[in-house]
Amino acid sequence: MSKLSPAEIDVALKEVSGWTLADDGLSIQKTFKFKDFNQAFGFMTRIALKADKMDHHPEWFNVYNKVEIALTTHDVGGVSQKDIKLAAFADDVA
Amino acid sequence: MSKLSPAEIDVALKEVSGWTLADDGLSIQKTFKFKDFNQAFGFMTRIALKADKMDHHPEWFNVYNKVEIALTTHDVGGVSQKDIKLAAFADDVA
Repeated sequence: MSKLSPAEIDVALKEVSGWTLADDGLSIQKTFKFKDFNQAFGFMTRIALKADKMDHHPEWFNVYNKVEIALTTHDVGGVSQKDIKLAAFADDVA
Repeated sequence: MSKLSPAEIDVALKEVSGWTLADDGLSIQKTFKFKDFNQAFGFMTRIALKADKMDHHPEWFNVYNKVEIALTTHDVGGVSQKDIKLAAFADDVA
């Protein structure tokens, strides 16, 4: 697993929907909105199971129907294909 | 459900463990740490089921084994007994 370059991140972000690179260039982020808390936490639960299986965990904030997710790969000090993979999974679940 | 006064919050916070009033006085907060993500999300799941049953939802942030929770009651514009109840539940679960 290696750190993606800015150009590689640009390309990779085209594979997912609505994810943007953080200002510091170290993570990708997206805010998801649902009907209510039940749907939002159901979404989080599916991500959590996937994340634990991948041993690659999100940084996330939830209030009621909103889930803000940031994905970064600490081992490489930036964004890797693992983040793109988990982002694509989150899009599929939502 | 009514808004607790600062004095009432002081008393109520003695019923729970390690919760503090936010600087703006509108919410109570605590950071929980666990062994790993699996334990942290297991904790969150138990809170989520309780919160949805109470129709009283946390604002929370999670990264790996850490869960930061803020509890406030929007309907009263501050802290109510609902927040104290959910805080006590979180302590029990942790």
